[in-house]
Amino acid sequence: MPGKPSTGLADIVAASTALSDIDGQAGRLFYRGYDINQLADSATFEEIAYLLQRGSPPSRAELDGYRDEIAAGRTLGKLVAGCLPEVTRSQEPMEALRSLVSLASADDPDSGSNEPGPNLRKAARLTAQQPVLVAAYESARQGQPAPEPDPGLGLAANFLLQITGSGPSEREARFFDTCLVLHADHTMNASTFAARVCAATLSDMHSAVVAALGTLKGPLHGGANEQVMRGLEATRQAAEAEGGDPVEAAGSRTAARLQAGEKIMGFGHRVYRVEDPRASYLRQMSAELAAASGDETYYRMSRRMEEVVFAEKGLYPNVDFFAATVYHYLRIPTDLFTPVFSVSRMAGWTAHIMEQHADNRLIRPDSEYIGESGLTWIPLDAR
Amino acid sequence: MPGKPSTGLADIVAASTALSDIDGQAGRLFYRGYDINQLADSATFEEIAYLLQRGSPPSRAELDGYRDEIAAGRTLGKLVAGCLPEVTRSQEPMEALRSLVSLASADDPDSGSNEPGPNLRKAARLTAQQPVLVAAYESARQGQPAPEPDPGLGLAANFLLQITGSGPSEREARFFDTCLVLHADHTMNASTFAARVCAATLSDMHSAVVAALGTLKGPLHGGANEQVMRGLEATRQAAEAEGGDPVEAAGSRTAARLQAGEKIMGFGHRVYRVEDPRASYLRQMSAELAAASGDETYYRMSRRMEEVVFAEKGLYPNVDFFAATVYHYLRIPTDLFTPVFSVSRMAGWTAHIMEQHADNRLIRPDSEYIGESGLTWIPLDAR
Repeated sequence: MPGKPSTGLADIVAASTALSDIDGQAGRLFYRGYDINQLADSATFEEIAYLLQRGSPPSRAELDGYRDEIAAGRTLGKLVAGCLPEVTRSQEPMEALRSLVSLASADDPDSGSNEPGPNLRKAARLTAQQPVLVAAYESARQGQPAPEPDPGLGLAANFLLQITGSGPSEREARFFDTCLVLHADHTMNASTFAARVCAATLSDMHSAVVAALGTLKGPLHGGANEQVMRGLEATRQAAEAEGGDPVEAAGSRTAARLQAGEKIMGFGHRVYRVEDPRASYLRQMSAELAAASGDETYYRMSRRMEEVVFAEKGLYPNVDFFAATVYHYLRIPTDLFTPVFSVSRMAGWTAHIMEQHADNRLIRPDSEYIGESGLTWIPLDAR
Repeated sequence: MPGKPSTGLADIVAASTALSDIDGQAGRLFYRGYDINQLADSATFEEIAYLLQRGSPPSRAELDGYRDEIAAGRTLGKLVAGCLPEVTRSQEPMEALRSLVSLASADDPDSGSNEPGPNLRKAARLTAQQPVLVAAYESARQGQPAPEPDPGLGLAANFLLQITGSGPSEREARFFDTCLVLHADHTMNASTFAARVCAATLSDMHSAVVAALGTLKGPLHGGANEQVMRGLEATRQAAEAEGGDPVEAAGSRTAARLQAGEKIMGFGHRVYRVEDPRASYLRQMSAELAAASGDETYYRMSRRMEEVVFAEKGLYPNVDFFAATVYHYLRIPTDLFTPVFSVSRMAGWTAHIMEQHADNRLIRPDSEYIGESGLTWIPLDAR
């Protein structure tokens, strides 16, 4: 039996992928060989989903065809639509999405096959469906029907329209689209890895995506962006209740928590040794949206926290830290931040599942046994 | 960046566990230090679930308390009960279980906490609920209410009662209980590993179990027992249609498939180098149940396949191979074989999730990038 475990599989190469690559020393991220900086500046989320799922950038005609698939995929299945009101009433957003995507396999005509054609169609449908599920959940709990999607808008703008009830500004739509581009894939993150472990038993795409959703839910992964915002909200509220300055409070509270050995959500990453390139974009977007909003408090609190954490620990903000305030300024409810992450990451998950199915081997690691040995079982009556 | 991937993480130690251990060279399996042979002979499934989840064999009083929790956990939650008819109508058994367990978090009073107390209670509830969900699914598709559980029977006998509609014989109940004991845990199998990857983000027990269920569904994992039975059924039907001998046909068809380089479901295992100790028990139970049934055809077909595969490939049957005929002789519908696996493995999954939460580190491996590099993104209009 092999010896000591690699705790958390840090530095263990678990799979080969042609989907994304990270240069943690240089702070660079690539999707299929394209630098994230180029993509953030000039690609839409639909182009990135196509790139990840289908292998190369779409031509205009290919993109039009893909957009048609996305538009067709917006209609919720019968089982999902039937269960949605009760699910919304009784489950938190990420629980609800886990349930609804699991239910959705019932109405997917390709759910029985892992072949490339059906998998490609399911990937497009799941990508189309995810923002609609989040919007339908939000509408259902508000007791209103979701605003009709605008066929002239892309996936990002339609999502903001459906969530906030009003058409986004050009800048809001563009920034949110960039957010989706930035979050679409990230090598062997925990949710993507869970999806691949599932798919490697030759289970189906819906099962693997459901595994990923449950994994993303955790506060050490996708749940972190919501935790960041909750922290900012609590600090601001406490400071204002005492007549204090929220920015000062953010700095002193962060310093105190670091002093106490606590972890600050939104900082540090297992792979990056310098700043995550996505964080740089998100910081800039947060600054611009804050200025436009007329209340820069949360942005300024974030900047102060960033200074304190770097001074004390040398840690950089990760993708979750400034995503929180960006989503806040985009008027997305805080408990939908992790669902928004899933709207984007669906592109990467589905692509990884197809990559796993295309060249599969069961993922079945070993474990190190650390319990007692050689015990004798005494039957209940003699115990 | 590290070099070549360990395909499928074979021989990579992914976690430490005190729950189970395999000696693949000697063909031995242990739960918390107790040899599976001792447990198969003299422990009930409830004792094993208790042992795995709570750390040591229960005293009589502890077992009584645990059985009370199991009995109380049989009542389905409101959301699950409400969605069950439509889910049954539109989803296959493993899809349905994935959906129903995801929905079940809504009515679990402990769903919001990963603390030891709530986790222990959820583990007992999930263990109680799983056989009830399978039975409720079976009854719903038959258009009948599930037979009332018999408080005098254990989990195994009640399950058979609810699935088949009649009380099992003493031998049937005892054998099925042994099946549940044998399948309860098995180190870092794919579904358990998926559950731990999910739990390691500090996501909750329901999310991790849902990830495990989707992973178990795959034909390279839990789905294999159903595939074994489907193969036996198809071979028998074809042979009988031609007036041939099903046993001869099982042998010749297996030989032909091996000749063609095909994999035979139910043989070989990544960890065992000799016979899986669970397979020995299942073979013996299959033999006895076959003799009692008056039709030993499927058992004899299995034996012939076993001889051919060993002669040609030197491979031993794994846990799935004789489980298929055992479940068949217990009159469990073939498409519920993998759900039955989940009824047992729920004990192990929940124990692994608690173990992961108790000493957690995010499971986030590396990947090897094998795609193109240094590409330049050309904007859509110039493409």
